[in-house]
Amino acid sequence: MAEPVFDKIAIIGIGLLGASIGHAVKAFGGAGEVALYDRGEGVRARAATIFPGTVCGEIASAVTDADAVFLCTPVGVAGEVTAQVAPHMKPGAILTDVGSVKGAPAAAMIAAAGQSVQVIPGHPIAGTEKSGPEAGFASLFQDAWHILTPSDNQDVGYLEAVANLTLFWETLGSRVETMDAARHDRVLAITSHLPHLIAYNIVSTAYDMESVEDGEVVKYSAGGFRDFTRIAASDPVMWRDVFLANKDAVLETLGRFSEDLAVLQRAIRWGDGDTLMREFTRARGIRKAIIDAGLDTAEADFGRRHSEPKDEK
Amino acid sequence: MAEPVFDKIAIIGIGLLGASIGHAVKAFGGAGEVALYDRGEGVRARAATIFPGTVCGEIASAVTDADAVFLCTPVGVAGEVTAQVAPHMKPGAILTDVGSVKGAPAAAMIAAAGQSVQVIPGHPIAGTEKSGPEAGFASLFQDAWHILTPSDNQDVGYLEAVANLTLFWETLGSRVETMDAARHDRVLAITSHLPHLIAYNIVSTAYDMESVEDGEVVKYSAGGFRDFTRIAASDPVMWRDVFLANKDAVLETLGRFSEDLAVLQRAIRWGDGDTLMREFTRARGIRKAIIDAGLDTAEADFGRRHSEPKDEK
Repeated sequence: MAEPVFDKIAIIGIGLLGASIGHAVKAFGGAGEVALYDRGEGVRARAATIFPGTVCGEIASAVTDADAVFLCTPVGVAGEVTAQVAPHMKPGAILTDVGSVKGAPAAAMIAAAGQSVQVIPGHPIAGTEKSGPEAGFASLFQDAWHILTPSDNQDVGYLEAVANLTLFWETLGSRVETMDAARHDRVLAITSHLPHLIAYNIVSTAYDMESVEDGEVVKYSAGGFRDFTRIAASDPVMWRDVFLANKDAVLETLGRFSEDLAVLQRAIRWGDGDTLMREFTRARGIRKAIIDAGLDTAEADFGRRHSEPKDEK
Repeated sequence: MAEPVFDKIAIIGIGLLGASIGHAVKAFGGAGEVALYDRGEGVRARAATIFPGTVCGEIASAVTDADAVFLCTPVGVAGEVTAQVAPHMKPGAILTDVGSVKGAPAAAMIAAAGQSVQVIPGHPIAGTEKSGPEAGFASLFQDAWHILTPSDNQDVGYLEAVANLTLFWETLGSRVETMDAARHDRVLAITSHLPHLIAYNIVSTAYDMESVEDGEVVKYSAGGFRDFTRIAASDPVMWRDVFLANKDAVLETLGRFSEDLAVLQRAIRWGDGDTLMREFTRARGIRKAIIDAGLDTAEADFGRRHSEPKDEK
């Protein structure tokens, strides 16, 4: 195991992400000591059975003496939680997060953090549709991108903090990139936020038709719909906050999506097969780009009937 | 291996479905002899290396003496292909298909088949995003629903034909149901057709943004978008025909989808977190129903990085 990057880290919020950082540090190193805290008493109790002796009853004691504090809370409370932890953090310590939106939540963190804390917002492109402390596992970050959106602060202390945080995530298996927060939010709006919104929406539409069609929507869900329900099983609080925090980019992307959908709708109504063919064929190009980039396997998906994911805990 | 249900079957169209029937009969029985035909000379040549000695150069010789003919062609040509095969079929033989739409294409088959052929439209709820003869594999139909939409013909010969076709698909591993064609098309519009249209559309939208965002849409596709590109990699000709053939049910379902999406869009614009929470929470209910029905695993999806589907050929 590598030499710890940090003597002590604190994880605030023990869900899929927070628990996975805990497991990953145990498995791969990166920190000598881990302290965890969650505002939910029940969550703390469950987490204490997974991480014995490291779950704190108070947020202040978790962050005291920590070299880096990881906010693993919904992005809507980023500023509020920062205000709770910052006064107890040691001068020069790093405050980072794992939120899916970087613009508004990062600004709230910076505003609430005060001068002595090094705020380096971050976002691991990793996750499953599960939530809660039991959902975490050590290999979640292996080969996953981790985007940091540091400020343009050129102080030696800040640059060193960014380097240390990069090394920490690399120790956990991530591939780290830095990016402008606004660009992050635009890219994630199309690669993650819109797909989740669409998945939630199609499941909602189907929910209403399920009663009309007498149970047959669920029964025949293997035709494509089932994959959407998996995405739509993700944590509702997390996603509510994502859409509210990334409002502008999501509405812009959704506008484009709806325009494009209107073109397909009109082509179907008027029997315009050429337009459908052109659009459907174009889609194969981007699929090929993803496979060529090594980001997915070219093997056919058999609806997961033939291969069970291994338990990675 | 079970006693063959049919002495000879003919498969017209050697793509994912046609080739899979060929493999499945070899593996599980159901027919003593299989003859295959595809109008594409190149496809026939490739298929001949997979199924030596059973690929015919003429459609007429493939269907001659067959007890059952399986149309595995795009639904847009169902009537046209029926007109080609019917005159060469023996009296009382079964004509079925595997098309994803049953109303209009089945009507075209019945109109073109003449009186001596027993038309029993069918649809296996099974597939992958791959196409072509090389994509076929024997276990595709295992535990998959197979929907037949027979006419209300109560002649003994027709009822016997339906029973035999049911037995054939059960031999290949399917769970067979019968259903009214219009109901099939409404149910599949929400469980399969709309999800595919949405997947194609979001990939199209992303395609246009990919150049704007300089390659980063592909790079960070693991956030949810990647699963849509997989669905959107499906055969464009097949899907063009599906949307044109099931126009009414698709437009009706798409209308409901767009209404529901407008509600989410408005909630995002006005910061209405309660509406988002309510809709996102509802989605978990239908996901749970699918898992309770045994139609998917509750295990988390790790983006297929940790488990490779086995080669099922």
